[in-house]
Amino acid sequence: MPLEYAHEPERDVKGLIIRKDKPFNAEPQVSLLVQHYITPDPLFFHRNHGPIPDIDIQTHEVDIVGLVSSPLHLTVADLKSKFTKHTVMATLQCAGNRRDGLNKVKKTNGVVWGPGAVGNAVYTGCLLRDVLKAAGVVSNPEDVAKLHASFASVEQCEEDKNYGSSIPLCKALDEYGDVLLAYEMNGKALTRDHGYPIRVVVPGYIGARSVKYLKTITIQNHESDAYFQQRDYKILPSNIESEEQACKVWCNFPAIGEYNVQSYVCEPADGLSCKPGPCNVRGYALSGGGRSIQRVDVSADDGRTWVTADLYQPCSGGTKMWAWCLWTAQLHATNKRILSRAVDSAGNVQQEYPIWNYRGVMNNSWRTMEPDQPHL
Amino acid sequence: MPLEYAHEPERDVKGLIIRKDKPFNAEPQVSLLVQHYITPDPLFFHRNHGPIPDIDIQTHEVDIVGLVSSPLHLTVADLKSKFTKHTVMATLQCAGNRRDGLNKVKKTNGVVWGPGAVGNAVYTGCLLRDVLKAAGVVSNPEDVAKLHASFASVEQCEEDKNYGSSIPLCKALDEYGDVLLAYEMNGKALTRDHGYPIRVVVPGYIGARSVKYLKTITIQNHESDAYFQQRDYKILPSNIESEEQACKVWCNFPAIGEYNVQSYVCEPADGLSCKPGPCNVRGYALSGGGRSIQRVDVSADDGRTWVTADLYQPCSGGTKMWAWCLWTAQLHATNKRILSRAVDSAGNVQQEYPIWNYRGVMNNSWRTMEPDQPHL
Repeated sequence: MPLEYAHEPERDVKGLIIRKDKPFNAEPQVSLLVQHYITPDPLFFHRNHGPIPDIDIQTHEVDIVGLVSSPLHLTVADLKSKFTKHTVMATLQCAGNRRDGLNKVKKTNGVVWGPGAVGNAVYTGCLLRDVLKAAGVVSNPEDVAKLHASFASVEQCEEDKNYGSSIPLCKALDEYGDVLLAYEMNGKALTRDHGYPIRVVVPGYIGARSVKYLKTITIQNHESDAYFQQRDYKILPSNIESEEQACKVWCNFPAIGEYNVQSYVCEPADGLSCKPGPCNVRGYALSGGGRSIQRVDVSADDGRTWVTADLYQPCSGGTKMWAWCLWTAQLHATNKRILSRAVDSAGNVQQEYPIWNYRGVMNNSWRTMEPDQPHL
Repeated sequence: MPLEYAHEPERDVKGLIIRKDKPFNAEPQVSLLVQHYITPDPLFFHRNHGPIPDIDIQTHEVDIVGLVSSPLHLTVADLKSKFTKHTVMATLQCAGNRRDGLNKVKKTNGVVWGPGAVGNAVYTGCLLRDVLKAAGVVSNPEDVAKLHASFASVEQCEEDKNYGSSIPLCKALDEYGDVLLAYEMNGKALTRDHGYPIRVVVPGYIGARSVKYLKTITIQNHESDAYFQQRDYKILPSNIESEEQACKVWCNFPAIGEYNVQSYVCEPADGLSCKPGPCNVRGYALSGGGRSIQRVDVSADDGRTWVTADLYQPCSGGTKMWAWCLWTAQLHATNKRILSRAVDSAGNVQQEYPIWNYRGVMNNSWRTMEPDQPHL
């Protein structure tokens, strides 16, 4: 049965680049994106795999089942009243952010995102660990190590019956992991586009794990069986070039959790300067797993010489840095490619050239450029 | 007063390359190193900042002081009898491992290590978190986030009164962090060279944080004041080229904790093939923070084409991967540079070219080569 797109929410698409209409996938122009440390809802990228569900918050329940001693069925009102409210600032990034850079090397399989499939927001909800404890999940590290928290969404999609994904239980229970069942984004109830009435937020992980329209959490001894955990969001070696080849090797490669170190020159938007001379450069940088950005180098001469950018990355108040870094630098433009490379707190650096992979995920090379086709 | 080196332990230096005599710093030949998944003691790199202490295990006490409600003074016998024994396999890597690669770009400041300042061992001891809990350390995440566990050693050194270093308290208390106060290495009491009678082992962090000859643990609201936390083991930008310049900026850059993604071609030892044709290549790969290695690409033609290596990285039994990966590949050698590049579980990749920094730390570029001066 074809998916039904008659009940999509109304959307203000000003400032957005629509990458796909059905399902709706769109990203902001990056020159607008880096104007705000906290991304306003209208500029937050849209990543969907099917029609936007239309859920009744009064009757919708989240089920916590599987290897728990006391399965729970909680309404959003229950989640709000029975668990401590918790607020986390976190940057969500699609694993396909900057896929266009890999697509220039060779065609990839996926929505061709530019560098705007990333956004920073303040999420409020309850801690997943509190909910799982209430459901009587195991707690000793040896058992926890073998289990996963699997999330199923109400969202119907093309690739599978419903959207689904999972994270290791140790991330779900991590005292410093800040995994939320969120009901608010930037101080207001989630919008339908961003997961209303309830979504998972997994800080430091690729966006695919922050399941929207959450219906079921299953504690189990294996990862989610969903397409999006098993046959997508994996980095395959460059010699895997087709679906047929990929089918044989998906199970050999791990599902992506944390994302890698990343940065991008967002201003000037075309990665060149309008004219040689002093030039203000701005961009974003981030890294996964709570790693902060320790330095961003910026070059106005295609990587020959570099200056150190000024970083804006206020402490998010926790022990890990889940929020991105915005940066600025003043350079002398020379009509050559303007580049950035970020170094995270673990000393990871972006590599110079794109390393192609079939699904076009996790591209974090230095900015590539086609002068004749500037980015918006 | 000059440091006194009259009481150094006897050492079997077979297979070791001595980088400095006093203090004793040595690394194994990497072709020997990769013969063993668990590094035998004689092939484990030696990193010292002063003479090896000669400690009486009967009277030596470790003090747990600072922001704790019940300061403790524990002998090694106390640590063995009062706390649960815990065993962790972990790879320790000096932040200066592969400094020689940066030194080829421009002279750095530090012991010129090759690629052998890394080793994988099985450590046994008690969990630091158990000891800190017994001392009544705070536990709520907001307070924990602001505190550090500072380690002071008995080891005298040239740069400071004693060796010292610290880690964030959240790492020390992390349920899945596996930080040990270790008294055994590979099933035997620590040797004097490796920290007898008691050392810290901080899995996933640079070796500098795994303080040997441990005397004092102080819980405090700032990092260790020691030279090795404040003025060393930091990645400075490339434009900082002298001690004078470095002095002005040390405080602007974070101390390294987790290390970055790394790999190295250890066989053939010279990074070339003796003759064109089929060639067995072996090496190691690792990443910090518990991130596993998901793939190692190997090239026999200076990076033009790549094959995927076979990985040996047995699960260490925990939720994080603290142990390294050994890998092999069969290539067709062409008398060009043989290279590896590892991808960790967060999608971080080694960059192609070395990015020079004054202290020469965290070099994880692809293998550089001087054909006229092959590595041992």
